[in-house]
Amino acid sequence: MDSSKETIRSEQNGTFLIEAQQGNARASRLKTQHGWIETPIFMPVGTRATVKAMLPEELKDLGAQIVLGNTYHLHLRPGEKTIARLGGLHRFMNWSGPILTDSGGFQVFSLSKLNKVSEEGVTFKSHIDGKSCFLSPETSMEIQMDLGSDIIMAFDECLPHPSDLEKIKKSMDLTFRWLERSRRAMTRPESLLFGIVQGGLEISLRKQSLEQITSVDLPGYALGGFSVGEPIEIMHGLVREVGPLMPALKPRYLMGVGTPLDLVIAVDSGIDMFDCVMPTRVARNGTLFTWQGKVSIKRNEYKEDPNPLDSSCNCYTCKNYSRAYLRHVFLSGEIISARLNTIHNLHFYLDLMKQMRQSILQGNWVEFRDRCLTQFVSNRSNEIIST
Amino acid sequence: MDSSKETIRSEQNGTFLIEAQQGNARASRLKTQHGWIETPIFMPVGTRATVKAMLPEELKDLGAQIVLGNTYHLHLRPGEKTIARLGGLHRFMNWSGPILTDSGGFQVFSLSKLNKVSEEGVTFKSHIDGKSCFLSPETSMEIQMDLGSDIIMAFDECLPHPSDLEKIKKSMDLTFRWLERSRRAMTRPESLLFGIVQGGLEISLRKQSLEQITSVDLPGYALGGFSVGEPIEIMHGLVREVGPLMPALKPRYLMGVGTPLDLVIAVDSGIDMFDCVMPTRVARNGTLFTWQGKVSIKRNEYKEDPNPLDSSCNCYTCKNYSRAYLRHVFLSGEIISARLNTIHNLHFYLDLMKQMRQSILQGNWVEFRDRCLTQFVSNRSNEIIST
Repeated sequence: MDSSKETIRSEQNGTFLIEAQQGNARASRLKTQHGWIETPIFMPVGTRATVKAMLPEELKDLGAQIVLGNTYHLHLRPGEKTIARLGGLHRFMNWSGPILTDSGGFQVFSLSKLNKVSEEGVTFKSHIDGKSCFLSPETSMEIQMDLGSDIIMAFDECLPHPSDLEKIKKSMDLTFRWLERSRRAMTRPESLLFGIVQGGLEISLRKQSLEQITSVDLPGYALGGFSVGEPIEIMHGLVREVGPLMPALKPRYLMGVGTPLDLVIAVDSGIDMFDCVMPTRVARNGTLFTWQGKVSIKRNEYKEDPNPLDSSCNCYTCKNYSRAYLRHVFLSGEIISARLNTIHNLHFYLDLMKQMRQSILQGNWVEFRDRCLTQFVSNRSNEIIST
Repeated sequence: MDSSKETIRSEQNGTFLIEAQQGNARASRLKTQHGWIETPIFMPVGTRATVKAMLPEELKDLGAQIVLGNTYHLHLRPGEKTIARLGGLHRFMNWSGPILTDSGGFQVFSLSKLNKVSEEGVTFKSHIDGKSCFLSPETSMEIQMDLGSDIIMAFDECLPHPSDLEKIKKSMDLTFRWLERSRRAMTRPESLLFGIVQGGLEISLRKQSLEQITSVDLPGYALGGFSVGEPIEIMHGLVREVGPLMPALKPRYLMGVGTPLDLVIAVDSGIDMFDCVMPTRVARNGTLFTWQGKVSIKRNEYKEDPNPLDSSCNCYTCKNYSRAYLRHVFLSGEIISARLNTIHNLHFYLDLMKQMRQSILQGNWVEFRDRCLTQFVSNRSNEIIST
């Protein structure tokens, strides 16, 4: 046993160990330059070199193991060369754990104006100052290498929903050619390059893209192009079909997803890694996740409610503050509101992932999954009724 | 020795012990319902039941012993009856140390519209929703008692600067009559009532007001009506004259003041307690205090500066982040900017108070004071030149 542990320790970055599997759901470990991460895993989003409202130490205390940085935002401000001269993104943002950066592709298409796509790359105007910029597989790789990311995402084209089949097909082929250029441009052996499967909402195109992307041998693969406004059932169906077809011995990452229900369905489909702004963004808007559904803390009924948001939750917020206080500081626009709400929501997400992992390791995934699905589907119905 | 310690322990709230004195400067201890505070002391301002950007635990870690709450703001939202039903302000905001509340007088005159002063009290319109409200000595005491404050401030009239002598004289007499009503209305023995000396910027009126106010036997006295736009040298001169005339065996509190220079001059004049929004407010605007003067973190020269804001500072911010990072998150409007800047500025203020206290206790106050004055006056000149 000891010698096998030694073997694991000496494995290079990208080593991926599946510790347990139940149906398609897996519990695994991935080695990065800044340490191992345990999956299924949720990665809090630290767009501009900070997970909004949080300090790195608080993220660690909540059990976060890896955070996401956004290439598009960091390229525009403060610039990757500046960050590189300051010792890289880890030192810059005081985070010693692993970092995954996206390729910038998604933001180019969602945030910037007047983007123009060519074989070479994308020309766009900065959403900050309107300055003209250019991103390509080569520049995206260079930026992510300058940042010193542990996991680097290939540069892909992200289409809006809906797009016609012809367009999706052309875009998918472009994404494949961009992947090959991304791989050639990736010269930093400490980082792991993940390829991104596109193909819109057609299962046949998704499968075709999967085949293209996985024809390039990489340490990990992702499903991109979701969370762009498509009906949630279609996303669930595609993840259920495509997830299990992804290379079994590599980490699988579903980008930009999602709700607690989405996460359980995706883990059940064999997905290992997730990121989403949802828990942090809705926290700042006063929406909090509980096992009984979402709570809008501004509601009048909480005005004098002395109870914690969720009495079964053991996060800092629930252990120390009443619903009445959370409502008061939210309505007053106080910074502590964003802090307390973000702590709670990230705790909810990270705790859910931890419970999923435990249940896979302990062999009771199906029971746990079904309990989650029943609860979350029922919550969703109640929320739809109450809105 | 042991029996005298025993005596101290059994003393009631309001017990004030002077531990050392150097010239007029004193190091002392004051007992409140929620524990002893050590002076000279700076009280961070927690206007709406939160010191902006901070958690209570972080304040404790920085050495804060007591925080200030604002009667005016808490009365308007969420309302003192609500807070009382939720167990009082301490429990509501998760702060177990002492709390001082102001009387609401200052905000009625500075924030609200259309205030109308009569013998009975002040009618004003809420700055939140325009609703008509009324504050008097009796209502102010009731609000502060409902909040459960450890130190309650008498209800006073606060005139703008400049005001004519006749008006100041009339207002001062009204404040005195209101103090007597405040005292009669104060029926909560756990709380300490402090009287407020007014009298504008005329030394003769200040002395007259001091005589009036101190004719009422109270556990502490404050100087009010400063920080209303008067020339700083006039304030310094008045504090130097009036401070030493205040009752020697009672705590002395200079309200709403001030800069590091103000604090040193006031401690040298025998003042024990301070509050000011300056360190927290300017932090959110990107201005940071150092022993070498104020730093505006947005300046271009810090764009790639890998050094901490102040390499001699051992606050969390200076130990973990570069000037370049502080500049980046400030320009990006990130919440972490307010947090890191507030931590640093409160650390600066609380550390300055701690050093003042130590130097008084250790008998080297004059040397420490002169070092501070030389440095702060020179900083001020540099800042005036550079603006």
